[in-house]
Amino acid sequence: MEMTKDGTWKRLPSYRNFLDHMPESMVQEHAENGNRENRMFLRNTDEEGKGFEYVMFVNSSEKKMVCVFQPGPYLEGPPGFAHGGSIATMLDSTLGGCAILAAGRVMTANLNVNYKNPVPLGSVVLVETKVDKIEGRKLLISGQVRSIDGETLHTEATGERSTVLQA
Amino acid sequence: MEMTKDGTWKRLPSYRNFLDHMPESMVQEHAENGNRENRMFLRNTDEEGKGFEYVMFVNSSEKKMVCVFQPGPYLEGPPGFAHGGSIATMLDSTLGGCAILAAGRVMTANLNVNYKNPVPLGSVVLVETKVDKIEGRKLLISGQVRSIDGETLHTEATGERSTVLQA
Repeated sequence: MEMTKDGTWKRLPSYRNFLDHMPESMVQEHAENGNRENRMFLRNTDEEGKGFEYVMFVNSSEKKMVCVFQPGPYLEGPPGFAHGGSIATMLDSTLGGCAILAAGRVMTANLNVNYKNPVPLGSVVLVETKVDKIEGRKLLISGQVRSIDGETLHTEATGERSTVLQA
Repeated sequence: MEMTKDGTWKRLPSYRNFLDHMPESMVQEHAENGNRENRMFLRNTDEEGKGFEYVMFVNSSEKKMVCVFQPGPYLEGPPGFAHGGSIATMLDSTLGGCAILAAGRVMTANLNVNYKNPVPLGSVVLVETKVDKIEGRKLLISGQVRSIDGETLHTEATGERSTVLQA
């Protein structure tokens, strides 16, 4: 929370259903597809502390997003470690936030993840993402997952998003 | 189920905790990391029909795995559609199964996903994966997610796994 004090970084609010989080105009627009019974994938477990435990911070001027992430015991892949898909999901969400910050509404085109070291369940890791390049409607983004002490590089990823043309 | 009749394809059992699924010798080996309170990421919701709804089929002689997948309402990304991370997770698991089939214990090295068309929540899709190449300890695998009628290509992916040297 220290880095939010000078206003450069802002903590993003958490939400379970997409519609709870959007301005009323967007809720109208998405009324056809949206459903309040749905749950955002990263908020799908009822039990506190068991699933995706995270908080995101955003730096608008530098177009960076950072996420402090602790995979809970319900994200298991290999015994005792987070499932590769849960790491991909956390990266995808943080990279996506980064792209939205830079370009508004976007769609995921590519996600390319290199797994270096598995993430133990219950450990706290830092997901850091940034926008590398904007080429027309295409955004190139990248990120890393590191241990909180910075010693271990767990995962690296690049992503591509395309902007959605507004009606 | 039709294709399992001649014995070429076999349906894989479903499980929630990794330890429930392993032979006793492997349970011993993983005792240090495993925990029966943990849950396999794809089986983390309590409510029937809300999360990863799927069944996997394996063809050992052709080193192929197929998964029939219906993303439930708790896997939401964009309103009404499956989260990109949930698609990556389903692909990762099916590709992983394919690699285990071909080479025994493996670790994920890379997952590269191209998103073509979003998958509506509740729709049924087919995830088809195969081993393309084995180079020493490296396995190259690939897969697609298509609508059940084959008309829509939702997602394409390639993956790389490395075999784990047995102690």
